[in-house]
Amino acid sequence: MVRLFPARARKHQPTRSRRKAETINRVGLAQLAPEPKRYLAHASYLQLALFETLSRAMVLSPSMATKSALSRVANTVLDRHHALTEELERLGLDPAEAMEPFAPAVDEFNARTKGADWAEVLMTAYVVSGILDDCLVQLAGGLPGDYPQRMTHLLGNDDVTDPLAEVLGAQIDEQPQLASRLALWGRRLVGDTLLIARSAADLPQGTATDDERLEPAFTDLVAEHTRRMDALGLTA
Amino acid sequence: MVRLFPARARKHQPTRSRRKAETINRVGLAQLAPEPKRYLAHASYLQLALFETLSRAMVLSPSMATKSALSRVANTVLDRHHALTEELERLGLDPAEAMEPFAPAVDEFNARTKGADWAEVLMTAYVVSGILDDCLVQLAGGLPGDYPQRMTHLLGNDDVTDPLAEVLGAQIDEQPQLASRLALWGRRLVGDTLLIARSAADLPQGTATDDERLEPAFTDLVAEHTRRMDALGLTA
Repeated sequence: MVRLFPARARKHQPTRSRRKAETINRVGLAQLAPEPKRYLAHASYLQLALFETLSRAMVLSPSMATKSALSRVANTVLDRHHALTEELERLGLDPAEAMEPFAPAVDEFNARTKGADWAEVLMTAYVVSGILDDCLVQLAGGLPGDYPQRMTHLLGNDDVTDPLAEVLGAQIDEQPQLASRLALWGRRLVGDTLLIARSAADLPQGTATDDERLEPAFTDLVAEHTRRMDALGLTA
Repeated sequence: MVRLFPARARKHQPTRSRRKAETINRVGLAQLAPEPKRYLAHASYLQLALFETLSRAMVLSPSMATKSALSRVANTVLDRHHALTEELERLGLDPAEAMEPFAPAVDEFNARTKGADWAEVLMTAYVVSGILDDCLVQLAGGLPGDYPQRMTHLLGNDDVTDPLAEVLGAQIDEQPQLASRLALWGRRLVGDTLLIARSAADLPQGTATDDERLEPAFTDLVAEHTRRMDALGLTA
């Protein structure tokens, strides 16, 4: 279990008013959805960055079978990226221009979460796509029109995480000594990934108040992440 | 102009019988088509290798616009790869198993033609996809059933070379001093690429006779390559 935000000041509140405050402040990510343009551009660039991670995993693949499986996942992620750039075009925007502002932070994130070998690169793809697609689906809940349905359809399925879990699971079965290293690497990834998730939400600047508002939503993201790590027999 | 095969012994033949011999021996690649299984597996793995080159070009992209353009090309190549693996499945074969025998030579080819920087990686993708897709379309002419039409439909369009020419052309316009280096690199690539093309044809072992039979077909491949280099204002 990862704690990105300290539960500061909490215990000084009397139970009843604390509960009330939580009810008032507890916002789903839908309430922090950015405007569609920003959402689509950020989401689109995140898919492109995930694709880069997956293509590295493909190149490093120890067997033709895993290379083949990963090429399908890479294709899915590229399809998502292109669907999102088409949404930007539909808004009359130039996708490259719209994505540009998000490149530095995402590229830096990708460099920081590169992974030392094939198994770690795979784990990066699994953890990052799991958390960020979850986050993007939840944020989409606050977008206008039929964006919520369309984004959930596009990003809310398990077409990326399921095949990755299969390849990773097989790899851990084959080399059980990988488990502890991958669990550690997974834990290392969550903090950076949640910071990217945070930057996708519409928060003016990271004030303590904002982070307190975000915490419940992020607790949900982490719970889902923990479930995905459990599926591999790893502790989150 | 590249000469892979020396025109040995030719001048010793009298003109008339030489002409006759050329007519008899001149075979299109269609007459050297391997069995469908081998064709599909080799073609499928070649697309995967080309995808690896393209994904490297994407990662190295200096601008978001070129990254975006290259992601589309990469998607096209992955689609081709998957269409070919589906053909293998239709024959009741396991694609990974079927591709395996072609991996060592193609991987070695990819390593040898890696390119030192973004422009060279792009040029590799342009030259290699140009020559090999040409070769695969011509070989497909000798496959049974409606394979020739299906393979021409899949691989015989300019969906890969056209956008690559556009990105490369823009890059050369921007940095004219690139032209001579890229022309040199292009020339360096042709020999290796034609050897891979040769290995896709159904020739028992490289005897002099076989190479003489191949030469006219390869002259056509090189002529098309020269045309593609011309399109960039480069000498082949």
